[in-house]
Amino acid sequence: MKLVRFGAPGEERPGLIDAHGAIRDLSGEIPDVSGPCLSAKSLTRLATLDPESLPKAPDGVRLGPCIGDVGHFIAVGLNYADHAAETGAAIPAEPILFSKAPSCIVGANDAIELPKGSQKTDWEAELAIVIGRRASYVAANEALDYVAGYCVCNDVSEREFQMERGGQWMKGKSAPTFGPLGPWLVTADEVGDPQELGIFLDVNGERMQTGSTRTMIFSCAQLVSYISHFMILEPGDVITTGTPPGVGLGMKPPRYLKAGDVVRLGIEKLGEQQQVVRAFPG
Amino acid sequence: MKLVRFGAPGEERPGLIDAHGAIRDLSGEIPDVSGPCLSAKSLTRLATLDPESLPKAPDGVRLGPCIGDVGHFIAVGLNYADHAAETGAAIPAEPILFSKAPSCIVGANDAIELPKGSQKTDWEAELAIVIGRRASYVAANEALDYVAGYCVCNDVSEREFQMERGGQWMKGKSAPTFGPLGPWLVTADEVGDPQELGIFLDVNGERMQTGSTRTMIFSCAQLVSYISHFMILEPGDVITTGTPPGVGLGMKPPRYLKAGDVVRLGIEKLGEQQQVVRAFPG
Repeated sequence: MKLVRFGAPGEERPGLIDAHGAIRDLSGEIPDVSGPCLSAKSLTRLATLDPESLPKAPDGVRLGPCIGDVGHFIAVGLNYADHAAETGAAIPAEPILFSKAPSCIVGANDAIELPKGSQKTDWEAELAIVIGRRASYVAANEALDYVAGYCVCNDVSEREFQMERGGQWMKGKSAPTFGPLGPWLVTADEVGDPQELGIFLDVNGERMQTGSTRTMIFSCAQLVSYISHFMILEPGDVITTGTPPGVGLGMKPPRYLKAGDVVRLGIEKLGEQQQVVRAFPG
Repeated sequence: MKLVRFGAPGEERPGLIDAHGAIRDLSGEIPDVSGPCLSAKSLTRLATLDPESLPKAPDGVRLGPCIGDVGHFIAVGLNYADHAAETGAAIPAEPILFSKAPSCIVGANDAIELPKGSQKTDWEAELAIVIGRRASYVAANEALDYVAGYCVCNDVSEREFQMERGGQWMKGKSAPTFGPLGPWLVTADEVGDPQELGIFLDVNGERMQTGSTRTMIFSCAQLVSYISHFMILEPGDVITTGTPPGVGLGMKPPRYLKAGDVVRLGIEKLGEQQQVVRAFPG
């Protein structure tokens, strides 16, 4: 099942994608695609609905972020061996965790806005895990039971803010528009093995990132288990799992986004995003 | 005005403290002490209510965290010059930002639970800022207009998880019960200058931390302004602003919390917290 949120920013309604690719309105069934509606019970009930019986959303409607009311937006650093190498970092012995401000979350095809004064805004195509069930101290072999589904995330990153402004990466990961999520949340049953998915990212039609979740250092199951030993994961929390090689920072010389650039990224089974880069509107 | 949330965990109701120190039930007036209810307009309206006209809460009721539905729990590291010195760190040139998982938030007098395997759980008495209005790129001289109020926070920290488990402090700051907030949210008008408040923390009756917000490196106004240049701050976001000297990590030898310890902390005008430390319940 593919769940979406559609409508104007801040007024999104829940929906699902029918067999013809059209958006069907779920607002008569659930209040939002968010925490409590991501339980196995709730998803099982939604799966029994006949999509044809649900109202159709207006053609061309905007897709919002595919999860509403994200409580904690956790990110994993350097989780692909070849990406660690390109940034000059050692392969981490344990997952590196940081967070992105929930206020950075936008729809899959919304614009990326360069922050005021930014010279080093970069892209990172990533698989994001959406938690469906409260997880605390869970074992890796049970961890995927706590996952509602997956979506594409562009972990947009300002490298100067991240690395040259005094420790702790959150500072470069949280600007408005730095967290496109979607186009849809694909439920775990439809994804199958999350470690067999191709990933790509293009800038202006030029392929920058090509990878597969197969080369993650820490798998989705390991990450959910690991993180649950440091904090409680709640339904609606999102974990974006790191990026494969090909970010701007790793190029010689480094290459960053500028106004007018078009970023397109996608993951097998999870759909595609496209963002136009805009100058700071000040 | 002092706002509280009272009742069993997860079922808290909003309230305020009347002239006699009793809790009055605000649930007929606002849904919760959270985001939208923290606007200047909402707080002004609440201030016009006659507390005596509101139902009294049951005697001895538990106090929950004084803010519900915290969107982003941001923390500032090493923001007191003398605390930086005791931990052996340089005085930061810019604020150090990290986050705490929202799921770590508990009431002011709830137990602190040692995480599984923890040997180095430490205390940090801090002034927390509660955001009342969406803030993006605000100037320092206007930043306090975006603050709904202040409360006490114990930024409980596991030093091994924070510093010996692979970069980024969030890992040591987010365990369940690591974020007591309260007893009450004191509105900004009642606090006045947030840079003139004494802070203390005792462990088992022994004074460990004594300080004043006067010695912050970056003031509350500077912090709100600074953070708003890296991310949008939303109503209900909490910024805990760093701790004065006297944490366990800084002692020679370091001293950490063990089951049965009693932590008491408070800030002038903002009330006091008391937590009993419990072993990991596994």
